[in-house]
Amino acid sequence: METLQGMKRDHHCGALRKADVGTEVVLCGWVSRRRDHGGLIFVDMRDRSGFVQVVFDEAAMNEGTFHKAESLRNEFCIAVRGKVRARSEETINPNIETGEVEVVCAELRILNKAKTPPFYIQDDIDVDEKVRLKYRYLDLRRPEMQKNIILRHRVTKIMRDYFDRNGFLEIETPMLCKSTPEGARDFLVPSRVNPGEFYALPQSPQIFKQILQVAGFEKYFQIVRCFRDEDLRADRQPEFTQLDIEMSFISQEDILTMMEGMIKELFKKAIDRDIPVPFERMDWDTAMDKYGSDKPDLRFDMPLMDISEYVKGSSFKVFNSVIESGGMVKCIKVDGYADIPRRRLDELVKFVQIYGAKGLAWVQYTAEGIKSPFKKFYDDATFAKIAEATGAQTGDLLLVVADKRLVVDTALGQLRLEMGRERNLIDPDALRFLWVVDFPMYEWSDEENRWKAMHHPFTAPRDEDIQYLKSDPGRVKANAYDMVLNGVEIGGGSLRIYNAELQEQVFESLGLTPEQAHAKFGFMMDAFQYGTPPHGGLAFGLDRLVMLMAKRGSIRDVIAFPKNQSARDVMSDAPSEVDPKQLRELSIRTAVAKKKEASKA
Amino acid sequence: METLQGMKRDHHCGALRKADVGTEVVLCGWVSRRRDHGGLIFVDMRDRSGFVQVVFDEAAMNEGTFHKAESLRNEFCIAVRGKVRARSEETINPNIETGEVEVVCAELRILNKAKTPPFYIQDDIDVDEKVRLKYRYLDLRRPEMQKNIILRHRVTKIMRDYFDRNGFLEIETPMLCKSTPEGARDFLVPSRVNPGEFYALPQSPQIFKQILQVAGFEKYFQIVRCFRDEDLRADRQPEFTQLDIEMSFISQEDILTMMEGMIKELFKKAIDRDIPVPFERMDWDTAMDKYGSDKPDLRFDMPLMDISEYVKGSSFKVFNSVIESGGMVKCIKVDGYADIPRRRLDELVKFVQIYGAKGLAWVQYTAEGIKSPFKKFYDDATFAKIAEATGAQTGDLLLVVADKRLVVDTALGQLRLEMGRERNLIDPDALRFLWVVDFPMYEWSDEENRWKAMHHPFTAPRDEDIQYLKSDPGRVKANAYDMVLNGVEIGGGSLRIYNAELQEQVFESLGLTPEQAHAKFGFMMDAFQYGTPPHGGLAFGLDRLVMLMAKRGSIRDVIAFPKNQSARDVMSDAPSEVDPKQLRELSIRTAVAKKKEASKA
Repeated sequence: METLQGMKRDHHCGALRKADVGTEVVLCGWVSRRRDHGGLIFVDMRDRSGFVQVVFDEAAMNEGTFHKAESLRNEFCIAVRGKVRARSEETINPNIETGEVEVVCAELRILNKAKTPPFYIQDDIDVDEKVRLKYRYLDLRRPEMQKNIILRHRVTKIMRDYFDRNGFLEIETPMLCKSTPEGARDFLVPSRVNPGEFYALPQSPQIFKQILQVAGFEKYFQIVRCFRDEDLRADRQPEFTQLDIEMSFISQEDILTMMEGMIKELFKKAIDRDIPVPFERMDWDTAMDKYGSDKPDLRFDMPLMDISEYVKGSSFKVFNSVIESGGMVKCIKVDGYADIPRRRLDELVKFVQIYGAKGLAWVQYTAEGIKSPFKKFYDDATFAKIAEATGAQTGDLLLVVADKRLVVDTALGQLRLEMGRERNLIDPDALRFLWVVDFPMYEWSDEENRWKAMHHPFTAPRDEDIQYLKSDPGRVKANAYDMVLNGVEIGGGSLRIYNAELQEQVFESLGLTPEQAHAKFGFMMDAFQYGTPPHGGLAFGLDRLVMLMAKRGSIRDVIAFPKNQSARDVMSDAPSEVDPKQLRELSIRTAVAKKKEASKA
Repeated sequence: METLQGMKRDHHCGALRKADVGTEVVLCGWVSRRRDHGGLIFVDMRDRSGFVQVVFDEAAMNEGTFHKAESLRNEFCIAVRGKVRARSEETINPNIETGEVEVVCAELRILNKAKTPPFYIQDDIDVDEKVRLKYRYLDLRRPEMQKNIILRHRVTKIMRDYFDRNGFLEIETPMLCKSTPEGARDFLVPSRVNPGEFYALPQSPQIFKQILQVAGFEKYFQIVRCFRDEDLRADRQPEFTQLDIEMSFISQEDILTMMEGMIKELFKKAIDRDIPVPFERMDWDTAMDKYGSDKPDLRFDMPLMDISEYVKGSSFKVFNSVIESGGMVKCIKVDGYADIPRRRLDELVKFVQIYGAKGLAWVQYTAEGIKSPFKKFYDDATFAKIAEATGAQTGDLLLVVADKRLVVDTALGQLRLEMGRERNLIDPDALRFLWVVDFPMYEWSDEENRWKAMHHPFTAPRDEDIQYLKSDPGRVKANAYDMVLNGVEIGGGSLRIYNAELQEQVFESLGLTPEQAHAKFGFMMDAFQYGTPPHGGLAFGLDRLVMLMAKRGSIRDVIAFPKNQSARDVMSDAPSEVDPKQLRELSIRTAVAKKKEASKA
């Protein structure tokens, strides 16, 4: 193995162009592919910037160097000194950016050898993700992964530039925090200095960013790691990154406008997409009623439609009993899908059952007439009225759910998405942004038999709804808003309560006694006694946002070192057992070891 | 309490100038001080930008508003609509930037009231830090704290701009890592999903940043939180922030030059100071020999000088026995301090004993002749020779220590700093940067009776010293470097080993068996099998750097929410006891609770 001593890289592989022909260059990088051709060896040499072809010509170089070139294998780390020359017309490769040139090697150094990698270092490989994660240092060499990580860097840089320019301060908040079990499960960190006590890793810097408003910083942001010890799903990680924002002396409209500006700049600069502003705004009631979702995907329409008034009062018991008990009958119209196979309809019945619906009905407007399981309960005029109300024409399909409002909306909302995908109604290049506003302050938890905060307990109710906090919590709307992109919630926030009495009232409505509230958030309520400004903010999930921008299916593809579905880093093998001495110093024991000891006894 | 509804802040208090006279403005902020003067009320109104005087004139405004103004107290949060007017000549206040103008209030809203704060919201308060930390939201309102946090934001922004412009990528590394006990103590995080196993919070992203080089990212940086569970000192926090850097295909000189460029830009843009580059470079041997420190403060000179050759072979046993057993006699010269009081000399004897020296001797070159405890053992010619060698003149003082080299250097190095302060030799405005290079690879641990890595086990030895790795580890110098500012180490790093066999050799020299090395760093040694590039980097302590730039004495003044000396956040009261259910879910118990239960039984 050789060193770089006396050689200084002065060009990047992927940057060489026809204009560089004749230039002597020093390149550093990796052997991506080697082909031998008589007395010629061709190496695709790769660095962060891309590829270039390097030629070793036996006839034109000293024997030692050519022999060295013959020993090259994939992923050897090399340095090359050579001259850029134009490729002949017939050897130009239009598929790569450097395809018009090649570098004729004069000097080669092998900086490091490489074993044969467990998978090819190229895009679109079909390899178990387990293997990719174990050899993450090789996986990350693949051009598509390099692009993702570079995009992520660009995204955070553009965000920071934007917020800095708009007078925001990036202020770091602690990672070793107080555990306030509310919402998700905390990760805990035992304190050695304070035996028996624990820090919690932050689920978000919510309290600290509000405290920073009390402290008068007025405009705060941070790109910050957060932690939630929840069971993992495809798009969840135990640690994730958040763009966190808080502002003082502002209206909700000020916040939304500031964030639209950020998104516009971000998408333009990072991926050259023009995003029109302002975004559409839709209140939560409308979103649920019309799209059956608080994060509607507006890349296609297919709204939910209420047909209760047309089907009520008939001899069809299913619809009647639902309507009489306060429920409703709604449908979606799937254009040109009247010929849906019966088998598919049966699958869709099961599909809506996942979301709590007891069943699914349908109307097929075919050339041969109406086909529907409830055809016999209604006359033709009814079906004509339904067709008129929904706009259904011959060839169209209505999918109908009857149940309580929330069940109908949820099931049909999901069915709408399923049909959108199935009927290819979604433009994969479309970027449809939306603000969903006027969220309910509370949602009822059947499980805990109490009202819970839909956002979090610091969210401010609308002024006009404060009167219902006690008498009718379900009626109270909050000054809360979510940013939605293509049916994915990418950010959300609210105006905050800044009045200590109102905060106490809200804690009370959530079932917290003043003592409990004080034990958890006492210092915050204290802070509210000293001239807290009106403030509000929001947070974006950075991983998910970058994933959408990079058009990837998993946030693991935009995180350098993600955990797997068991919250494990399979490369470094974390978590792991630790030295008992470490646990003794922390004054803790594992209950697992206990069990083992017990079974021994 | 009132809202901002219908009012939109359009100016900042501290930004108003004579050019704004006549403008109607809306301000938001806090009452910093109120003075009543007949029918006039003057309020110093404060926001993040500074102060401005607001005038409430009973004669010129409606009664309600004036009454409201009469209710204002310190730290009330208010909004004011009014007109800027020039102050009369005799009321101009040249001490504040807005001192030429004032705002005549037309409309006042009290957004929030405030209790009397526990301390004044102003600079240079004399308040127990405990109280400041408990009411951090008020402490942070003080202009000097606002300035510190704003400076910190500027510093990280400038760093990010610099590294981005120079082709570095900011890449996030995990917070939930593997525990590899080596160096400081880890903070542990129990895993719920993997009972009995633990994550560790990173002491630094060292391994990940090297893995990112293996992965081909070439230029990495990150401003990142790190954790060390050590006992706290004035300038230590259990969590701290690091500017972390790693580069591939570079020489040591490339790295130093890149960092000098960063510092130059940072100091110019953040605090308008011109820093000359390149910095002075001093090898570790010279630093220790000449200044008795691996982080010499070059704001004053006063080098350590070896006088062994002049004092050896006399009848003075103390010096003789030291020299004969391989030790040395060195001194520093304190100009014009020959008249040092005897009491002070006695204190200095105790001072050097803290650093392991058995005693201190001295030579006072006074107008009345030599005064020295060892005068009787030497003739005048010897003292003349010493004077000639050290440059001592009448009126100067030599402070002399005889011992083993390391003890002499350490004790005199500290004494040098003490004298520098005592004799006012240090220009508080000076910024003296320095690279200390060629650190030893190992240092001997008497405690553990083995060689330990002076930097960390991934540091590359100098090529020419590899031959001594086994035979004479103490002789091996590393490609390691520290950046020193005014005697404080602000950054340090090294070129890394990138060859698996050499890495194994170094682990072996540190007393790790191949099995132990593999258990801890196996994935890294695996990674080294796949074409690892030559690489190196360094890390800066951000808190300390900002502290020096802000001229503060404690890093707690540049961290928004620091822990106290017991690793406690006294504002939110973390760490704290947690719900036993949380511990059960994590399969751990506290040994503390166990004890309590045991004592009950």
